[in-house]
Amino acid sequence: MVETGSTSEVLAFKPVPGVRLGATSAGIKYSNRNDLVIIELAEGGSCAAVFTQNAFCAAPVTVAREHLSTAMPRYLLINSGNANAGTGEPGLRAARESCKALAATRGCPINQVLPFSTGVIGELLPVEKIAVAVPDALTALTEQGWATAARAIMTTDTVPKITSRQIELSGKTVTITGMAKGSGMIRPDMATMLAYIATDALVDKHLLQLCLERAVQPSFNSITVDGDTSTNDACVLMASGVSESPPITDAHSESFATFCAAVESVCMELARAIVLDGEGATKLVEVLVQGAESESEARDVGYTIAHSPLVKTALFASDPNWGRILAAVGRAGLENLEIDQIKIWLDDVCIVRAGGRADDYTEAAGQRVMSQDALTIRVDLGRGMSEARILTCDLSYDYVKINAEYRT
Amino acid sequence: MVETGSTSEVLAFKPVPGVRLGATSAGIKYSNRNDLVIIELAEGGSCAAVFTQNAFCAAPVTVAREHLSTAMPRYLLINSGNANAGTGEPGLRAARESCKALAATRGCPINQVLPFSTGVIGELLPVEKIAVAVPDALTALTEQGWATAARAIMTTDTVPKITSRQIELSGKTVTITGMAKGSGMIRPDMATMLAYIATDALVDKHLLQLCLERAVQPSFNSITVDGDTSTNDACVLMASGVSESPPITDAHSESFATFCAAVESVCMELARAIVLDGEGATKLVEVLVQGAESESEARDVGYTIAHSPLVKTALFASDPNWGRILAAVGRAGLENLEIDQIKIWLDDVCIVRAGGRADDYTEAAGQRVMSQDALTIRVDLGRGMSEARILTCDLSYDYVKINAEYRT
Repeated sequence: MVETGSTSEVLAFKPVPGVRLGATSAGIKYSNRNDLVIIELAEGGSCAAVFTQNAFCAAPVTVAREHLSTAMPRYLLINSGNANAGTGEPGLRAARESCKALAATRGCPINQVLPFSTGVIGELLPVEKIAVAVPDALTALTEQGWATAARAIMTTDTVPKITSRQIELSGKTVTITGMAKGSGMIRPDMATMLAYIATDALVDKHLLQLCLERAVQPSFNSITVDGDTSTNDACVLMASGVSESPPITDAHSESFATFCAAVESVCMELARAIVLDGEGATKLVEVLVQGAESESEARDVGYTIAHSPLVKTALFASDPNWGRILAAVGRAGLENLEIDQIKIWLDDVCIVRAGGRADDYTEAAGQRVMSQDALTIRVDLGRGMSEARILTCDLSYDYVKINAEYRT
Repeated sequence: MVETGSTSEVLAFKPVPGVRLGATSAGIKYSNRNDLVIIELAEGGSCAAVFTQNAFCAAPVTVAREHLSTAMPRYLLINSGNANAGTGEPGLRAARESCKALAATRGCPINQVLPFSTGVIGELLPVEKIAVAVPDALTALTEQGWATAARAIMTTDTVPKITSRQIELSGKTVTITGMAKGSGMIRPDMATMLAYIATDALVDKHLLQLCLERAVQPSFNSITVDGDTSTNDACVLMASGVSESPPITDAHSESFATFCAAVESVCMELARAIVLDGEGATKLVEVLVQGAESESEARDVGYTIAHSPLVKTALFASDPNWGRILAAVGRAGLENLEIDQIKIWLDDVCIVRAGGRADDYTEAAGQRVMSQDALTIRVDLGRGMSEARILTCDLSYDYVKINAEYRT
């Protein structure tokens, strides 16, 4: 697998044959920036998607699910600045009307258009502005459109997030490129806040869905900024099928395994980029919980640490206040937890052993790790073989500032 | 029931006959302030207690539980500045040695002393300093000692918290006075961060425990500042029995009901005072969840709202960003939640109805409520008869500041 591109080199993406992107300014909320994106998938391509598990899912999520169940999508219609969530029946109508405006222009059935929205919750989507802007976005369609599109879907994000991989399948090069947005209200559950991944491989639609569901688990479903699951989370994997590589139709084939590994790698990098760009984040923190009885309990402990405001503020302060980590492990709700079996490390520095501070621990050693921009909190529960990794960030003044000022 | 005293009028407490308190400075962590408190219960009195459910419970919690199971306490020994948590076997020894210093001075068995600690986690308790200071604290014992003691047990608290009630039982006046400390790491689970309540009533020890367990549920067990359950939570109810009122020995008697109501009222006021003094708090927020299938699911929804950093920062900004409340309800994990049955209010202003913004809602009306110092977020799930109330506060710059700077 050749890794190309990263979030800091946004221009280094590889275009995906058979997938075109166009962006324009519809003036939905922001001025002087693009806020409307259309992604076009070549005829004969396939598309898989996962969505938020939030019971208050947004109108576009409901409509996208409906459309996906009855047709293979040709277009994704994405706006930023307005989430069209908590908008009831009028919101559903607005989502459908937006799709209709695009479908009418292209002469395709309305259910071949999937709508996506991100932004403020509770305000009705201005359909008119979108309908007026659709032709401009269509005119702008190009396989080179990823960077422009990645910027247009941003809300509180400070950087666009794109990455690419190229793999060889039967001697043919296949490209996988993905983009994502997300910075706050980040604790995805079965999907994340708007991620779009495309490939020119030809993949059976059931395998495409299987690949996506596997890939989101260790990536988007293992990150948290603030524990708040969005109403609009969606992750889409499109396959145009225009590459000359042989079709992927066997779940046990080497080509499917290679393809899945590349998609997962794209998802992992985008998920990491979302946490790195977490609202107010100054540190990237991996919480690795090992020695658990089940993956589920490992994730419970990992999220309890990752969501603890006290752990997060200590991380912000670069303070090796390990008692807060220990207290979080203790309140994670595990039955019959034997605290003298538990060990905790900051990177390679053991801070807790046998229920108390490790004998050889020094504040200086803890301080050294905590001062880093990236670190791993590792917990060994000492009661099983399962583990889980959660990616998170710290809690800073700027998180409060961004979320106290957003919308006002 | 006569209500006397409040947290803002700290001197208005009523002393409890048969209960004396003394405070002194042991120099454990702070300088120029008291940090050691002894509470003495008259011979023949009884004592009930509940403790943290955090698996990493502190050494004094373990020792206090042991002592309670084998003897009726005569003395509580409380220090601030050091939590003696995460200290392993040496921490247990330190807690026992502290008790021994007091027991030796008074000539009582060591298991008649209960230890309590609050402060930084992970540092060994300086037993020598405590042993040296015990005689001073004993000399200071007085029934008038509540205000001094309430100040001595504070850590990041900005105000001492005391309240009193007096009730008539068979024509005799009985007093109930309580004090508490707590400001951060507040999401008590079966108890809270150090609360001490005393009465001169004569109460059967089993009824005293029953009374306490009932009283902590709607009070200390229904508040949250930051969702972090402390390792040292403890709540003690002492009855000296020196009043002339008849003994309370029947769980179905009117006198027990009257007594329980007064104890619950003391707990409610102290719990409210803890949230009001929550780290960085600028607003007191009641989250009332109604129409739930069970109290448990009502509490789940209430805590999801009360812990959401996005809801808490919107509260800090006085921004009626109700979409964040709606998103929190949606991610609370309720099965088969029908969103068009849900209604949400800010005080008397209905903001959400039928899954979307209420038709008659105006930003001005929402803004008016959000600008208040205290408000109620009320959610009606429309699927049952159960309800729960959670008290919480907002998330401000100062929460981050206090917790980024504490210890450093």
